Amino acid sequence: MNSSTKGTLYGVGVGPGDPELITLKAARLMSAAQVIAYPAPEGGDSFAREIAKAHVAEAAKEISIAIPMRPERKAAQDAYDVGAVAVRAELEAGRDVVFLCEGDPFFYGTFMYLYDRLAGDFATEIIPGVTSIVACASRLRQPLVSRNDVLTVLAGPMSDEELEARLKLGGSFAIMKVGRHLPRLKALLEKLGLMKRAGYVERATLANEKAIPLAELAEPSAPYFSMILIYDGDEAWKN
Amino acid sequence: MNSSTKGTLYGVGVGPGDPELITLKAARLMSAAQVIAYPAPEGGDSFAREIAKAHVAEAAKEISIAIPMRPERKAAQDAYDVGAVAVRAELEAGRDVVFLCEGDPFFYGTFMYLYDRLAGDFATEIIPGVTSIVACASRLRQPLVSRNDVLTVLAGPMSDEELEARLKLGGSFAIMKVGRHLPRLKALLEKLGLMKRAGYVERATLANEKAIPLAELAEPSAPYFSMILIYDGDEAWKN
Repeated sequence: MNSSTKGTLYGVGVGPGDPELITLKAARLMSAAQVIAYPAPEGGDSFAREIAKAHVAEAAKEISIAIPMRPERKAAQDAYDVGAVAVRAELEAGRDVVFLCEGDPFFYGTFMYLYDRLAGDFATEIIPGVTSIVACASRLRQPLVSRNDVLTVLAGPMSDEELEARLKLGGSFAIMKVGRHLPRLKALLEKLGLMKRAGYVERATLANEKAIPLAELAEPSAPYFSMILIYDGDEAWKN
Repeated sequence: MNSSTKGTLYGVGVGPGDPELITLKAARLMSAAQVIAYPAPEGGDSFAREIAKAHVAEAAKEISIAIPMRPERKAAQDAYDVGAVAVRAELEAGRDVVFLCEGDPFFYGTFMYLYDRLAGDFATEIIPGVTSIVACASRLRQPLVSRNDVLTVLAGPMSDEELEARLKLGGSFAIMKVGRHLPRLKALLEKLGLMKRAGYVERATLANEKAIPLAELAEPSAPYFSMILIYDGDEAWKN
């Protein structure tokens, strides 16, 4: 088969949650897609598909990649192996495939797992999206970084030692994947004197979002889609 | 005047350059705006206005805030003082004002200068946008960060000492505002053994963009809209 008869794989960021934060390009590609693919938690609904629903053509074929929500990485990797086989078949048959990805495809996005498996064999295009970090900053209503500020993006599952080494260097921070790590992260930020500069956001830009100073958060745990932003000491926390 | 009769100030991110990377929400607000405002280099055209041009209503009043391109911060701050007075007059008269901002309003965005001056007196809404960082990653065609990777955002004007202290900690990096700092940054990355993991992007998503491994860049200087991305050592640089 001549390569020009193969389909193109599009990795499309659908943004943080509000369907209006989809880009014009993503909306155009989704509306025209013969085939769309997306990850979904095993037995659950796909958040990316939910964000995109107004733009998916009724006639489009859909490939849902069921991702086991277990900590072992191999189970998820096996699921992407299976999903890549289904996507590959469409591309080989000459059909374009639009893969929907929460946020941005290459910024902590799930698209990379398909990209690793397929980009060597097919034309691929990546459509950047609005990340959860800037969505959270908009909801906390305070500029996150400006001029030559340093921003460091960390993750809740990192150890206290790793987090502390970075936090002590100063600047602004985003801590993603807060979830069940919330009590430990709060204790660490309290110890480092950073609590008064910290904001907390869950489900940014969705109807049930929460965006408050971290110190005011009473709940002992956080949902998966939650983030802590820590503002540089030069800027007062005004929220 | 009752506060409910005042206008609302919208800080709208228009993304990295490709007009199709505007969000649906930004497009809607711009199309409906009676008044739009934007920064422009003194004597030059506004990049944000250029990105947005298809969506600005012909009848809209436009407030161009001319920013002196001198290193002293006071000149730019004086310009935003003047711009804020013009925007304030519209808001007081009950007209909404949509301020256009390259990338995202609160992520190294210019909107913060109006926000600081006006948010205390008027209803304000921030519409996040696609940042240049994820746009650059999409054009280098390599996932920037995944899982629990650390990403640090640095700026070209930082000193070698400041940059080196951060770069030595590992993870992935974005160095913004490369511009005239290019030769110094290349020398530093060479010294630290990071050149083979570095990609270079200028004018991401525009027709005249460049996205290549940094080691292949022959030019001695870079335009203002340029960035270096450094990929984590765990991931091979495939570009």
